[in-house]
Amino acid sequence: MFVLRARIALNIKSVEHEITEEKFLADKNGLLRNLNPVYEKIPVLIHGDRPICESLIIVQYIDEVWASRPAILPCDPYDRAMARFWAVYIDDKWIPSVRAILLSEGEEAKKAALEDAIQGLILLEEAFTKSSKGKKFFGGDKIGYLDIALGCFLEWMRVTQKIANVNLIDESKTPNLFKWAQDFCADDAVKDVLPQTDKLLEFAKFYAVELKGSME
Amino acid sequence: MFVLRARIALNIKSVEHEITEEKFLADKNGLLRNLNPVYEKIPVLIHGDRPICESLIIVQYIDEVWASRPAILPCDPYDRAMARFWAVYIDDKWIPSVRAILLSEGEEAKKAALEDAIQGLILLEEAFTKSSKGKKFFGGDKIGYLDIALGCFLEWMRVTQKIANVNLIDESKTPNLFKWAQDFCADDAVKDVLPQTDKLLEFAKFYAVELKGSME
Repeated sequence: MFVLRARIALNIKSVEHEITEEKFLADKNGLLRNLNPVYEKIPVLIHGDRPICESLIIVQYIDEVWASRPAILPCDPYDRAMARFWAVYIDDKWIPSVRAILLSEGEEAKKAALEDAIQGLILLEEAFTKSSKGKKFFGGDKIGYLDIALGCFLEWMRVTQKIANVNLIDESKTPNLFKWAQDFCADDAVKDVLPQTDKLLEFAKFYAVELKGSME
Repeated sequence: MFVLRARIALNIKSVEHEITEEKFLADKNGLLRNLNPVYEKIPVLIHGDRPICESLIIVQYIDEVWASRPAILPCDPYDRAMARFWAVYIDDKWIPSVRAILLSEGEEAKKAALEDAIQGLILLEEAFTKSSKGKKFFGGDKIGYLDIALGCFLEWMRVTQKIANVNLIDESKTPNLFKWAQDFCADDAVKDVLPQTDKLLEFAKFYAVELKGSME
């Protein structure tokens, strides 16, 4: 999912790029160990001969290198700070709760994780109202930093909903995000990079088993 | 410690400001609950009537609002990405290991935490060599984003060293950081905001007891 952030950012800026896939939880050629020795994680953007790691940092890097093309972060420093704040919230607080819906043991723990994830979305719905100022996206008329930060998980949310038989982005609880999700997925920079739901479903099942295994 | 980041950034930019202290682990007036409802943590920068939360986001905000004054982040997008990468590494990986030196139960766990913290400093020593390009600071001739991100913990490291009877920034293992620490603490934007070691020592002992208590 984090790779999508870099891909969408490159699309917004119309930057030609090549994609090299690495197998999940495997790094047989040691490529990731060389490129991202601290975390050994994807995505890594290789620009020239220099690797840039961590998806939110990559998106900011792309925005700054191709600064004359459509902006990804807002122009106003306060709006930028808010976009950064919620993006970090998504990674540090919200994603762990979504992950826990699949990985928690027992019905009670799963229910608590679902409740956390929905409460997070309610906070993000409020952030959307402030940030979008009546327009379609967090970024206004066009998708921006926070749209990318949250939007890359939309397919993952759908898959989580299917596997766990739950409802995450609910039209009654978060109506603005419900509408935003449709607009985001239809965007030109997004629609061709979204993963196929059935492939992702397969991956999610594998992921849940692998991760549970590694935690035991 | 995180508050120091905001204070040093305001000093670099010569921004007049007032400081309101909030008691640790208490928020009797509900001030933090109002200003930073998501985390209820300090620092919060109030600029005009708008709160900005999270120390690294505050530092970037200050850099962008007072953009014509001395720069805090590097100018080059790649250098900016590297500074952001290591700042996040400090918060997400390195600080938890330093904290664990004080909070871990048992000698073996403390030793492992110390080893992690020192390995982290060795990585940061390498980052320093690349980033400083032979100059005094991560930021070159003047202190910048990564100097602030790490430097705010120097007094805390000293206190940890005293309490746990360990050595963190060691001249033999990380000679460049050893020298950097002296230059950082002597800097005009820094020297008057550093906490007094004896006060911090008192706080650290309280902190260790409180945090251990809250984890039990």
